[in-house]
Amino acid sequence: MQSRGFALVISAPSGTGKSTITKAVLEAESRCVQSVSATTRKPRAGEVDGKDYFFVSVDEFERKKRDGELIEWAEFAGNFYGTPRAFIEKAKAHGDIAVLDIDIQGAAQIRRTMPDAVTIFVAPPSLAALEQRLRARKTETEEAIARRLARVPSELAAAKYYDYLVWNDRVENAVQAILEVIRVESLRISRMDLEGDWLPKV
Amino acid sequence: MQSRGFALVISAPSGTGKSTITKAVLEAESRCVQSVSATTRKPRAGEVDGKDYFFVSVDEFERKKRDGELIEWAEFAGNFYGTPRAFIEKAKAHGDIAVLDIDIQGAAQIRRTMPDAVTIFVAPPSLAALEQRLRARKTETEEAIARRLARVPSELAAAKYYDYLVWNDRVENAVQAILEVIRVESLRISRMDLEGDWLPKV
Repeated sequence: MQSRGFALVISAPSGTGKSTITKAVLEAESRCVQSVSATTRKPRAGEVDGKDYFFVSVDEFERKKRDGELIEWAEFAGNFYGTPRAFIEKAKAHGDIAVLDIDIQGAAQIRRTMPDAVTIFVAPPSLAALEQRLRARKTETEEAIARRLARVPSELAAAKYYDYLVWNDRVENAVQAILEVIRVESLRISRMDLEGDWLPKV
Repeated sequence: MQSRGFALVISAPSGTGKSTITKAVLEAESRCVQSVSATTRKPRAGEVDGKDYFFVSVDEFERKKRDGELIEWAEFAGNFYGTPRAFIEKAKAHGDIAVLDIDIQGAAQIRRTMPDAVTIFVAPPSLAALEQRLRARKTETEEAIARRLARVPSELAAAKYYDYLVWNDRVENAVQAILEVIRVESLRISRMDLEGDWLPKV
């Protein structure tokens, strides 16, 4: 029984370890493909169009937005970023799982524009653990850390809109839980075609 | 994060091995409890009220039906059988999973009366395998087997209304898939209370 794939949205408060977890899930499950965003940002050295990003002009980005070709979009540091629906739909038709590592605003847009997306909120074991991880990075100023921590309450408040809660007490546990979500969501009858004689005769 | 439990409905065409699978799931997962039906049938030797069945009078059964105390009911061989909502709700409040091994008509009633129930359709690997298993039982007449086989197409047609499809190619695989469904459904945020300060401070 071939089942259609789906979009898998993964969000987490910053410092939770979302990027590490997402990378491990993509490596462990061959049906997972990382979603490629469209952006108006200029390519950096080594970035490949269609692999790292779809690099587009501001006009082209605006047109995509207007024509509903983006399931979510946002502006960061003067550049636009968005997720092309076509990429996700192609993955779904192939039975693949398009993985989107995305913030709560992006996830909220996707719930509206692609209601069959599966959404996972990854939570740190505690507020103290989250703060500790942010400091352990040693890549950010105290001010940047304070800014991230200030955002945490609103990020936690958004968790109730997601489908599943996965705790990142240990990266391996979080990855295993997400892989289980993927396997179980692949058993969903709403993504199968059970019309007619769907049971094999022999 | 304590999450509410749920009703787990398991249906399958007869001969698929549903009883074997359900028993193994109940043994493997300690949060699973078998649903106890109310019935107007007289107790048989050794049957315990409240454990095997809730034995009730026809009047009491009719009252339960009328008052919406049964999430599904049916008549077999002149006796009434029904699933008390109170038993299931108590299990759910405890964080338990109430397992119902039930036919497609019962499952259709439960989808209406308890929409948050999780429903699984167990399928045999093929029609030929199903027929072979029915004959291998050697407990039924050719006529009874023919009657069971005649029901299969309508049972298969009902599969599309279920949440999940689990193949019983091997009992162990089907049991593992159902245990995964239970684990993943337990991550569902709709069954958790994420209001307020839900993330532990330390």
